[in-house]
Amino acid sequence: MFFEGSEKKLEIIVAASAPNLRELDVSFWSALVNCAHAEILSQLSNADCDAYLLSESSLFVWHDRFVMLTCGNSTLVDAACYFIDALGVPAMALVSYQRKNEYQAHLQTTSFADDVGKLRQRIAGKAMRVGHLDSHHHYFFCSDSDYRAPKDDQSCELLMYHIRGELADYLNGGSQSKAEICAALELNDLFPDFELDAHLFDPSGFSMNGLWGKYYVTLHITPQSENACASSYVSFETNLDLAQYPQQLLRRLLALFSPVSWDTIGFNINDSTQGFPAHLCLGRGSLTTEQGYDIRFSHYQQLDAEVLIPEFM
Amino acid sequence: MFFEGSEKKLEIIVAASAPNLRELDVSFWSALVNCAHAEILSQLSNADCDAYLLSESSLFVWHDRFVMLTCGNSTLVDAACYFIDALGVPAMALVSYQRKNEYQAHLQTTSFADDVGKLRQRIAGKAMRVGHLDSHHHYFFCSDSDYRAPKDDQSCELLMYHIRGELADYLNGGSQSKAEICAALELNDLFPDFELDAHLFDPSGFSMNGLWGKYYVTLHITPQSENACASSYVSFETNLDLAQYPQQLLRRLLALFSPVSWDTIGFNINDSTQGFPAHLCLGRGSLTTEQGYDIRFSHYQQLDAEVLIPEFM
Repeated sequence: MFFEGSEKKLEIIVAASAPNLRELDVSFWSALVNCAHAEILSQLSNADCDAYLLSESSLFVWHDRFVMLTCGNSTLVDAACYFIDALGVPAMALVSYQRKNEYQAHLQTTSFADDVGKLRQRIAGKAMRVGHLDSHHHYFFCSDSDYRAPKDDQSCELLMYHIRGELADYLNGGSQSKAEICAALELNDLFPDFELDAHLFDPSGFSMNGLWGKYYVTLHITPQSENACASSYVSFETNLDLAQYPQQLLRRLLALFSPVSWDTIGFNINDSTQGFPAHLCLGRGSLTTEQGYDIRFSHYQQLDAEVLIPEFM
Repeated sequence: MFFEGSEKKLEIIVAASAPNLRELDVSFWSALVNCAHAEILSQLSNADCDAYLLSESSLFVWHDRFVMLTCGNSTLVDAACYFIDALGVPAMALVSYQRKNEYQAHLQTTSFADDVGKLRQRIAGKAMRVGHLDSHHHYFFCSDSDYRAPKDDQSCELLMYHIRGELADYLNGGSQSKAEICAALELNDLFPDFELDAHLFDPSGFSMNGLWGKYYVTLHITPQSENACASSYVSFETNLDLAQYPQQLLRRLLALFSPVSWDTIGFNINDSTQGFPAHLCLGRGSLTTEQGYDIRFSHYQQLDAEVLIPEFM
């Protein structure tokens, strides 16, 4: 029983001529989510944003944009196509679509190249890969557009592979409760100003969305209890300005989960490694899109050569 | 135009009751090779072994065993099944089947799990993976058997990813000749006692088999000229006792190809890194099979964090 934790990510910014996305009926978002083979589980809202917790990750909707993450064998590109078809190409200011390398790419319904083919039937754009195919790598698609990103349009993703230690053992253990996990993750301390919405999956898996004004945080844990640390995966993402935020989020999450390897993907942020555990940087890449996003990708691994345990099949 | 360089490997040792494999007609081996969607291109023979150069790598046949490597989208497991069905399970002393992690696993016809399913319909055996799915990893299948490997039943594989430097540039260049490549590889100096059989593929790719008594060497180069070093791959394999052989084969091949990362897989050898270029060992694993094979897998990377160049799609 393998579950692919690594996510696909869609961000669409709409043009000024488009309707206020928050005024679209929830049935619209529900149908969009269904296109990706996911379901809405719960909702959190404030004056700026609607945050939906999904059966396969999260959806955040602001008046002029939305961000959607889906893991597993979801078909996020079909949600993108549904949205583009519903509002029309002229209403798109920017369509951005990402895929991380999967643990088991051959079990996915489509490849990134397939997805880009579908997107390009609707909207022109640049597609690229950063990172070698035999190691961590990330795929980006970005539509051609006149949109210019403001400097404070920031986001940061932390992707953690093969979690270890006390918290990992607990998450891989038999019985857990949502309250215990929230406490173990120190969520109230990490995100004191955020309103949080968490979900514990059966038999395992934990998702959390948080909102604070226009800022979101989202955390998804795929512990993979069947195979211990074989393919565990934890992702964290936020549009906070990490340099200004009082909690050292990345450092503390890395200390909690103690992953064997991790990646950071930053849009318009400095990729500081201050406070990271002792590590090797195996590779880093950056690119600047026409819209002014400075995208930085870095791949880290714990310092010591790992002793790999054969896994019987 | 992507070509998967990484190989699948089959080794079958037959029981004393089985026929001398070298007395089987070439039509038998040709049919077996066809099962994997490959063809025999040329043959080299000596008193101990027949070495076939294939459209997708190599086949070596001794009187009591054969080793077959195939790359690309070949179906080597079907060749294994053909052989087992032709000679019968009682004639099998040991069936061993390996797959390296592929650059693009989703483009393969089958997964390792699929392959093991086919093998287990015929013969029981242990299957395992060494290495994490998001990094270099190797799959092994080994049939349950009473066979006991002699200590000198050694082999060593060197797998090189993302070749760089003068030789890589030449191999990725427009016009090459077999003689020039053999000279650039210093084959006569590396293998002075071996008889060699080489093939240059169109538009690119180079394969070489060599025989010296019961010893073989085989080298396969997938330069991937279309995408520069994006997914280049070079493999070298031998059953020589490297500790006794006067040429420092692994060191010299690593110096020639200057790969970003490389793996070694040794059966009953010491995995010495003497003379390797400056490197990080990202992981290592070992296991001993019931038949007495001590298998060691190590994954290395060049020392410096690599600057990853976005690759447009």
